[in-house]
Amino acid sequence: MIDAPPSLFQKHKETLDGALRAIRERTYWSAYPEIPSPKFYGETGREDGEAAFKARLRSDFALDQPSSDSTVGVEKSPYGFVLGVRYPKVDVAQTIAAARAAGRGWSAASVETRAAVALEILERLNRRSWELAFSVMHTTGQGLMMAFQAGGPHAQDRALEAVAYAYAEMSSIPRETDWEKPQGKNPPIRLHKRFRIVPRGIGLVIGCSTFPTWNAYPAIFADLVTGNTVIVKPHPHAILPLAVTIEITRDVLRENGFDPNVIQLVADEPSAPLAKELASNPAIGIVDFTGGSEFGDWLENNVKHALVYTEKSGVNSIVIDSTSDLSAMAKNIAFSLTLYSGQMCTTPQNIFIPSDGITVAGERVSLDAVAGAISEAVGALTAADDKAVELLGAIASEVTVTRLDGAAGAGEVVLASRKVSDPRFPDARVRTPLILKVDGKTRGLHEREQFGPIAFIVPTANTPASIAQAMRLAKERGAITGAIYSTDRNVLDAALDAAADAGVALSCNLLGNIYVNQSSAFSDYHVSGANPAGNAALTDAQFVAGRFRIVQSRVPIAE
Amino acid sequence: MIDAPPSLFQKHKETLDGALRAIRERTYWSAYPEIPSPKFYGETGREDGEAAFKARLRSDFALDQPSSDSTVGVEKSPYGFVLGVRYPKVDVAQTIAAARAAGRGWSAASVETRAAVALEILERLNRRSWELAFSVMHTTGQGLMMAFQAGGPHAQDRALEAVAYAYAEMSSIPRETDWEKPQGKNPPIRLHKRFRIVPRGIGLVIGCSTFPTWNAYPAIFADLVTGNTVIVKPHPHAILPLAVTIEITRDVLRENGFDPNVIQLVADEPSAPLAKELASNPAIGIVDFTGGSEFGDWLENNVKHALVYTEKSGVNSIVIDSTSDLSAMAKNIAFSLTLYSGQMCTTPQNIFIPSDGITVAGERVSLDAVAGAISEAVGALTAADDKAVELLGAIASEVTVTRLDGAAGAGEVVLASRKVSDPRFPDARVRTPLILKVDGKTRGLHEREQFGPIAFIVPTANTPASIAQAMRLAKERGAITGAIYSTDRNVLDAALDAAADAGVALSCNLLGNIYVNQSSAFSDYHVSGANPAGNAALTDAQFVAGRFRIVQSRVPIAE
Repeated sequence: MIDAPPSLFQKHKETLDGALRAIRERTYWSAYPEIPSPKFYGETGREDGEAAFKARLRSDFALDQPSSDSTVGVEKSPYGFVLGVRYPKVDVAQTIAAARAAGRGWSAASVETRAAVALEILERLNRRSWELAFSVMHTTGQGLMMAFQAGGPHAQDRALEAVAYAYAEMSSIPRETDWEKPQGKNPPIRLHKRFRIVPRGIGLVIGCSTFPTWNAYPAIFADLVTGNTVIVKPHPHAILPLAVTIEITRDVLRENGFDPNVIQLVADEPSAPLAKELASNPAIGIVDFTGGSEFGDWLENNVKHALVYTEKSGVNSIVIDSTSDLSAMAKNIAFSLTLYSGQMCTTPQNIFIPSDGITVAGERVSLDAVAGAISEAVGALTAADDKAVELLGAIASEVTVTRLDGAAGAGEVVLASRKVSDPRFPDARVRTPLILKVDGKTRGLHEREQFGPIAFIVPTANTPASIAQAMRLAKERGAITGAIYSTDRNVLDAALDAAADAGVALSCNLLGNIYVNQSSAFSDYHVSGANPAGNAALTDAQFVAGRFRIVQSRVPIAE
Repeated sequence: MIDAPPSLFQKHKETLDGALRAIRERTYWSAYPEIPSPKFYGETGREDGEAAFKARLRSDFALDQPSSDSTVGVEKSPYGFVLGVRYPKVDVAQTIAAARAAGRGWSAASVETRAAVALEILERLNRRSWELAFSVMHTTGQGLMMAFQAGGPHAQDRALEAVAYAYAEMSSIPRETDWEKPQGKNPPIRLHKRFRIVPRGIGLVIGCSTFPTWNAYPAIFADLVTGNTVIVKPHPHAILPLAVTIEITRDVLRENGFDPNVIQLVADEPSAPLAKELASNPAIGIVDFTGGSEFGDWLENNVKHALVYTEKSGVNSIVIDSTSDLSAMAKNIAFSLTLYSGQMCTTPQNIFIPSDGITVAGERVSLDAVAGAISEAVGALTAADDKAVELLGAIASEVTVTRLDGAAGAGEVVLASRKVSDPRFPDARVRTPLILKVDGKTRGLHEREQFGPIAFIVPTANTPASIAQAMRLAKERGAITGAIYSTDRNVLDAALDAAADAGVALSCNLLGNIYVNQSSAFSDYHVSGANPAGNAALTDAQFVAGRFRIVQSRVPIAE
């Protein structure tokens, strides 16, 4: 059995202890600074990260894992250029054989060793946050600042959160115990018992195109710490950030005496997808998936031999009943709609407003005035192209642009989508949000997820009807987030009950610098698992407890 | 929201605290005395329990749950008489509607209230252990002492263990928190967050014919404490113990202001089974099943809308390499084979012995001599009919007798099965174990579960081959327990590694008054979930953590 030096565990113990405390309190905590300051990330951190990213372009990405001589890779930046990174092409059977072989040493290591190695990996990833930022930006289309934060420190925090949950669950199980059962006047029966943590085997992590690191890290790190080996199958349009992650992870594994094939990359192209073949392999013990409902549902319904954790799609809603400050509310909502062109799984899509309007600080304001205020706020946020591109980022997929163009006829255009020129990238695919007013009575386009910068103003009979419609959609289609604006305590309570019933994380009366689409590690549970938006939460005990099993033994204690 | 008086929680807090400590240490602990002494269970406890059982016979079992006027029930005691208990016949849709209605109040109660109510129920069940013992005896065929212990206090301990795990998981989640994120020189962003525990909805618990309470209680109580309502669908041959349990549970719920339909009985008959219809209902959020692999596999493969926890069948093995004491080993194994006529899911079926024999205290002993010693020990245990019946109990199902009779031709009979007369019950179905020597090379009858008093001596090339065969069967067919006898530390270590890999709880060198088929609450994990014998363990975090979800909300904290 290989065990990393205890000093590695000691080195990271304070971070682990902080995370363990944070998951019990779920208050604000972070291990990796989100501020991209030179103080944390080096005077030349940004330049070095960009240079490292550029050095990857138009070249082979070397990974010494089992693979053929040929390569795959068709990544194209949403900012308008071909990445040209060529990843090793692998054979699934060979990859699985290598994962199995690597698993023997990894599963035999102690929980402390695996946790220490995971924390060392995270520290290395953190140092490389700028490189990861550029690779996230140019695969997903995120603006650079979001790519840095969500793709770097926030993803690392989410990973650490999963490490902490897994560590907490495993360390609550004694490794061994002496069992002594009294037998009245006779000597007690005494058994020595051992409880071994046994991994499921191989975890398959299927990445998404929009948040490749943030959404994959919790699964990768939960699998690793619980002793599983990991095969990462990124979205074919967002391989690079995970390839860099795997490179760093393999280095740390190797340095600590483990077979680097504890983690392997399976890159593919849309023309020859490998996710189904991988997930169907009986050697896979766990599948984690983030992406569209179609494949997520297929996994949930067809993979019987493995645990399946999903985060799929949904229809998120805002219910507006009343507010103390129309302008602040409109600005807050506008920011949520604009950020990363609505390409977050937490972005609101539908805005339910009573057709006779809302109350603002005691005055009635019409539905059209409310819709107008939101549209104006979006317009203000996106007025200057150079500022707008930072917030909007670029559209990850051409399909989204097609959807956006097609949606314009589905209702009354309150705010038209506009093509924005990115001064740095002339071919970047940048669009502002489209806001449509629809007839809430008919079962329209708004009742399904319209991924991208598409929002709907939906008139309703009254606020109870708004809440009912929003929560019905959550139950039918899934929803990760919801928001409500109301100055009436009773309305808020009714919404909170309805949201709990529908499994929707509800934000109430957000007016300032905090937005419904933000999900903070160590505090916000991302996805409830209680509606069709996904069956797993980041992160709770359920997310980690099944990734390992306990196998016991007992032997009489000699007198 | 109804909440039971805090005094009820206080009343049971010491018991809960003891259980919470026990599951962290997994050493010996018990809340409910297994000794059927008048000190614990009353001077007239046994007589009262028998009288209460007899009063149920040939009459309607009244339960004020929604049901039709007609009744079902075809239970017959394996000791040879018809029970004649008539249970209310229910309509599945009506039962589910009632469960849903009852769930509103139950899910809104605090975790402490639900735990307190569960502990009150367990205290009542404990007081009724003798009545439960007679009902278990005359549905399952267990001997009275086993029916008392396994059906009463041991089942109650297993229930309490599940309550403790569920309570521990839920109480590690804060109910609310103030989140305060620093913003440099600006004021921090402050949010008040609430984290609600939300149940899955309705838990369906499908009972088995051999240990109706022991196997169903963990699921019932885990469901209850996590806020789910419960529909219990007992095996049609073992309804009474669960009906009594449900009656008591409903009383306690009602006394504490809850809708008694938080738990309901669905009784059925083999001619019109209801388990599939129930499990297929989308209102069911959790299914717990103990029973045969065929239906367990069906549930695992077909129920997509609910969590499915199974304990199915398997092929348990003993590997004999060497021992310090042939006679003690033979007696220990003989007891395991004889207890409840081998009708435990933990009973060993196959005994692997090198064809050139084993070492006993340094001397070679032939395979036939070892097989002979075990057979003689079984013979001695079952020689006197009146003693034998206490240990053997009766055969639960006629199918098992048919299987036993048919198996005799499958190998060389080392010990023939004998019909035993029960002096108390002339029509009791009592048989001693059959021991067959088979050709280990062919894929024979021993490679599948032969439920009942059927054991196989399987000659092998050597001990490594024995271990390999036992663990291959565990991986292919499932296995809950395994045992090994060896005086060689290296052999034991190899077996421990192989058993961990195959997910088998291994007992080593049991010679005294402790047996491989025994599983002790708060210490032994029953079923690893790591081979086809089942996907769940009694009890670990995985068994409880998915039974509820967490739905959060956030609202800005006013300055």
